[in-house]
Amino acid sequence: MSETKILASYIVNARFDDIPDDVRHEAARSLVNFLGVALAGSVDPAVDIAIRALTPFSGQPTAAILGRVERLDPLHASLMNGISSHVDDFDDTTPQNYIHPTSPVASAMCAYASANRVTGRDFLNAFVLGFEAESRVGNAVYPAHYDVGWHITGTAGIFGAAAAIGRLRGLSEQQMVWALGLAATQAAGLREMFGSMGKAFHPGRAAQNGYASAILAESGFTAGERGIEGPRGFAAVQSAKYDLTEVVRDLGTDFNLRRNTYKPYPCGIVNHPTIEGCIELHHAHQLTPGDIAAVRLRVAPLVLDLCNQHNITRGLQGKFSVYHGAAVGLVRGRAGLDEYTDAAVNDPAVRRVRERVTATGDAGLTEDQAHVEVTLADGRRLTWFVEQSLAQLAEKFRRSAARALPADAVEVALDRCWRIAELNEVGALVDATVPAVQRA
Amino acid sequence: MSETKILASYIVNARFDDIPDDVRHEAARSLVNFLGVALAGSVDPAVDIAIRALTPFSGQPTAAILGRVERLDPLHASLMNGISSHVDDFDDTTPQNYIHPTSPVASAMCAYASANRVTGRDFLNAFVLGFEAESRVGNAVYPAHYDVGWHITGTAGIFGAAAAIGRLRGLSEQQMVWALGLAATQAAGLREMFGSMGKAFHPGRAAQNGYASAILAESGFTAGERGIEGPRGFAAVQSAKYDLTEVVRDLGTDFNLRRNTYKPYPCGIVNHPTIEGCIELHHAHQLTPGDIAAVRLRVAPLVLDLCNQHNITRGLQGKFSVYHGAAVGLVRGRAGLDEYTDAAVNDPAVRRVRERVTATGDAGLTEDQAHVEVTLADGRRLTWFVEQSLAQLAEKFRRSAARALPADAVEVALDRCWRIAELNEVGALVDATVPAVQRA
Repeated sequence: MSETKILASYIVNARFDDIPDDVRHEAARSLVNFLGVALAGSVDPAVDIAIRALTPFSGQPTAAILGRVERLDPLHASLMNGISSHVDDFDDTTPQNYIHPTSPVASAMCAYASANRVTGRDFLNAFVLGFEAESRVGNAVYPAHYDVGWHITGTAGIFGAAAAIGRLRGLSEQQMVWALGLAATQAAGLREMFGSMGKAFHPGRAAQNGYASAILAESGFTAGERGIEGPRGFAAVQSAKYDLTEVVRDLGTDFNLRRNTYKPYPCGIVNHPTIEGCIELHHAHQLTPGDIAAVRLRVAPLVLDLCNQHNITRGLQGKFSVYHGAAVGLVRGRAGLDEYTDAAVNDPAVRRVRERVTATGDAGLTEDQAHVEVTLADGRRLTWFVEQSLAQLAEKFRRSAARALPADAVEVALDRCWRIAELNEVGALVDATVPAVQRA
Repeated sequence: MSETKILASYIVNARFDDIPDDVRHEAARSLVNFLGVALAGSVDPAVDIAIRALTPFSGQPTAAILGRVERLDPLHASLMNGISSHVDDFDDTTPQNYIHPTSPVASAMCAYASANRVTGRDFLNAFVLGFEAESRVGNAVYPAHYDVGWHITGTAGIFGAAAAIGRLRGLSEQQMVWALGLAATQAAGLREMFGSMGKAFHPGRAAQNGYASAILAESGFTAGERGIEGPRGFAAVQSAKYDLTEVVRDLGTDFNLRRNTYKPYPCGIVNHPTIEGCIELHHAHQLTPGDIAAVRLRVAPLVLDLCNQHNITRGLQGKFSVYHGAAVGLVRGRAGLDEYTDAAVNDPAVRRVRERVTATGDAGLTEDQAHVEVTLADGRRLTWFVEQSLAQLAEKFRRSAARALPADAVEVALDRCWRIAELNEVGALVDATVPAVQRA
């Protein structure tokens, strides 16, 4: 059995009418979350630098970049959208495989839809299919693949981008097999980049290279026929353990999109229970920094594997420091975008508390749980046990998008995104995120 | 100790005057071999397709493509040069790590030198340093990395391209650390692509993405500081076993370039002893296809791991079929570019013999040895034992380059390549490979 062929056949042939209503609605929610987060990230220096460095290599500027006045060719626009939508570590997560799933797929699709006419129905359909391809490939190799150090958002993400763009281009089954093969052979992204701009580069490159995979395959550039399941293919090479049935099981009936989640805090998702507990303690006891003598965390072991950064000086490092998450929660009672800037990381009050935080891994805790214990200067001990987090999507969109757009423009973009299935041209949604076009 | 920092510091600071004469000469030999092979490959359909598919995304066409009249931006030209120089599987090999080392490095450098003024001395210096970076990173992870299924020419190659372009751009040590980090996090290429255009795509993408890594790092796009040696870095993630001392040992005194080799046959190098033996038998006994009843090969086990393709119909598959290599050697007495076309693979006489070839792996043989036994129709048995192969570089260049250039132009290009250290502008060498410029 060839999982690559079965997946390719599904992506090529699945119809929008066969996608259940709840999945379509979750797709719109994922896109609302994505666009808000991308708008917030579009003002980040990483995006400025990448645009400055690569504009001399860009082709005809036929594609808008989310939240920016510059335009680039669609491949470079895909890269920039991917960086914007992940640089704040505020995008969505599928907890079963730790992929941030929308960024690689939608970053490429928004660039494509800006440069080419795409209806809302076709866009949503291709998005759902790209999401499935990405998440299913991720499921097949998670957790061994992630544990060894792959940033699965990059490695699985490229399959999603190739699938979605390939579907929009109307690839044949053979072409889709090659597109997935070319995606497989470019799947990359190391967790060693966490805490640097390199992390956000991963979904950007996944979007760009997945897009290029589809374009090359469409023109007849061949690849191995078994990119996913072959003996020297993605799963065998990039994961010590894998289960290929995950790629094809219940294809068309079970949608991974149903299990998507949207972060309330712009940092590594495994920090969230800790942050939530610290925010609760801040409000419950009106804590000031001087009150706090010591903070002891008990967290799932994965938290320390991922977010154990000490002695930090940069906002991007703060996103992978459970100590910083605890400190801003306790000191400021919140953990929004402003708590993950360089200034926030170097804020003396935050730093003072951060240096008093210790954490131990507890195999008895899951990643949606955390135990926080604060020892006060007067000797009292406060504790909080947390389970799970939730987010208010529209509010998150408004706060995020406000970093790039004026308030009325924010509402236009939000409205168009909720109504994406009705749009005759998704380019109108992309245009609504661009400051200059909006002002005109 | 940070191997990434030590390597970066060496690449940034090493001087041309410190490179021994024999290493400079081997660099020129590597470039002669590379250019000839790239010219032969420049007429391949894979290059036509890639240019057609990606030209709409190209920036200003400031760079020539080796052997082609089209021009693209330097990043896309790097990709095309990489495809051209590897698509015939005729480029060089460093036997200690099975990297085809010149393609990823020189493909990017020729694109760069076409669009920017670079002297021969600076070019040779950066080439030697890029080659070292690539080969040393490869040594650190070979063989476990290769054995599991990575195409090491792609994965190690990107480090070489980033190092060489980074050196030409004059990166600081910090920028070079980031360039190597961005290279590490894009290192990709699966052996599952062997027998398809995807294989040649690997050094092309390595050249293109290594080049982009240097450009991004130069502009301040940050990466993890320990891309090679970190716990979630290239070596740990992409190889079950590795030895980081290989990256830095005798840096500046031991040059991997000294151990470069140049293929006489355009196919997987492990087939070469078998081919040589079959060519010898063809000439020694004036064999005709009808004479041959059975062919039994004993080869190193790696040969069957890499080149075990049966029931083949395409030239690219023939390159990874030791059966095809034996057949063309016995039937035609040669194994040049014409023996690896679709037509040659489907030639009835070749196919008839190919179907009579069997091979067994023999752990007592090394990859530069092969034992060939031919049973004739009259019952006689002929045997040949082979060890090692050699190539005549200038002759190989002329035969290869003739596929893209007229004879006088071939001599101009060859002459300029041998004299590269004296060139004031390497762009003049790149121009000499372009049909239209040459004709003008």
